[in-house]
Amino acid sequence: MRHFHEQLQDLFQLIVQMGTIAESMVRGAVDALVKRDESLTESVFEKETEVNRLQVEVDDKAVKLTALQQPMAQDVRFLFMASRIGGELERIADQAINICQNAHHVLEAPPLPPLVDLPNMAGAAQKMVRDSLTAMIRRDVSLAAAVLEDEKQVDALRTRIFHTLLDWMKRDPAAIEQALSMILIARNLERVGDHATNIAEEVIYWIQGRDVRHTKGALSNGHGQEKRETA
Amino acid sequence: MRHFHEQLQDLFQLIVQMGTIAESMVRGAVDALVKRDESLTESVFEKETEVNRLQVEVDDKAVKLTALQQPMAQDVRFLFMASRIGGELERIADQAINICQNAHHVLEAPPLPPLVDLPNMAGAAQKMVRDSLTAMIRRDVSLAAAVLEDEKQVDALRTRIFHTLLDWMKRDPAAIEQALSMILIARNLERVGDHATNIAEEVIYWIQGRDVRHTKGALSNGHGQEKRETA
Repeated sequence: MRHFHEQLQDLFQLIVQMGTIAESMVRGAVDALVKRDESLTESVFEKETEVNRLQVEVDDKAVKLTALQQPMAQDVRFLFMASRIGGELERIADQAINICQNAHHVLEAPPLPPLVDLPNMAGAAQKMVRDSLTAMIRRDVSLAAAVLEDEKQVDALRTRIFHTLLDWMKRDPAAIEQALSMILIARNLERVGDHATNIAEEVIYWIQGRDVRHTKGALSNGHGQEKRETA
Repeated sequence: MRHFHEQLQDLFQLIVQMGTIAESMVRGAVDALVKRDESLTESVFEKETEVNRLQVEVDDKAVKLTALQQPMAQDVRFLFMASRIGGELERIADQAINICQNAHHVLEAPPLPPLVDLPNMAGAAQKMVRDSLTAMIRRDVSLAAAVLEDEKQVDALRTRIFHTLLDWMKRDPAAIEQALSMILIARNLERVGDHATNIAEEVIYWIQGRDVRHTKGALSNGHGQEKRETA
């Protein structure tokens, strides 16, 4: 049997691999929208199976390593974290799929609408995913804390997009369906940011052994406000 | 130190307690909407802190039990499941909070809109949560499998609500904001159903040791279709 720490490293690599694919799915979904080319969603749909398979593999490896190797506290924290981060990445992939489906509704009916701040919001949400994974790879608590800060920017963009699209719907009822799909895409991107935040919190928990979920001002003033969704 | 199985039982009870609160939050949020009484959302907001606290406690207990007691495979599966179900319940509570916020937008501006199928959808989603927890308590795989089936009904109601509200927005642009809030509530309820499905899948995994996530037709024909969101 391979050395326990090599096996932990394999699990770590599986998560990184899962994260890379999930991130590329979000990028592909947004590209389809920005380039107005629905064929770009095909590779996103194709990758879903791989992410799902990896999630099952991550959980299976985490449970087996725990049962067979009887690890100590910090490794147990890592193994639980691995399982939960796998869950977050699978949900990011789900959001990418949802963006593709909503993009279909945006692109099917010309005239094509202006994308308002959606590409900016997508960029910010993707950066959060990337940084949360980099924070995990580098065991970098301050980068993880920066991800928690970035969420505010994503939320501010979401609010602006909502208001712009609501106005647009009111002025042009013929655009209601497209605008609604774009609002749902903004919600999907907000969720991507939420999952990246969860990953960053897991990383902090893992490295520092303290739980920053549901805490106010744990790492910086003002962070940790519970999420509020508003129409 | 108390006996390991008593400690597992304590953890089990914590999850049940968390589930009971999360379920009552969804009920309270929907009640506020149905009874058109926003004051009913107050107790929902108050319960959020308790759910968050319980989630941290569940994870903490699960990690400590694993590290100190070096459990065997089935108990390890239970401990990982406990942590993940805690995460699902916390997200159900989040959805209840979101429903309250969206309900605020629905109720603030008279004339009050008809609630179309929202109360039915809420009832179906709440039943899924209740049944998934009962399946866990009774270790009842067939009840868990029934939850997976119920998701179709919730999704069908969501689609019907979307179409009704879209038509309504097109006919009456003055109602766009309220209708959008109701669409978002339908999305919130759909998420509640998704989380209940995840809990049911965890229960099956725990009892049978097989992973039914991402499988097609694992338990009954037609189940396991990956979720598709459409506007």
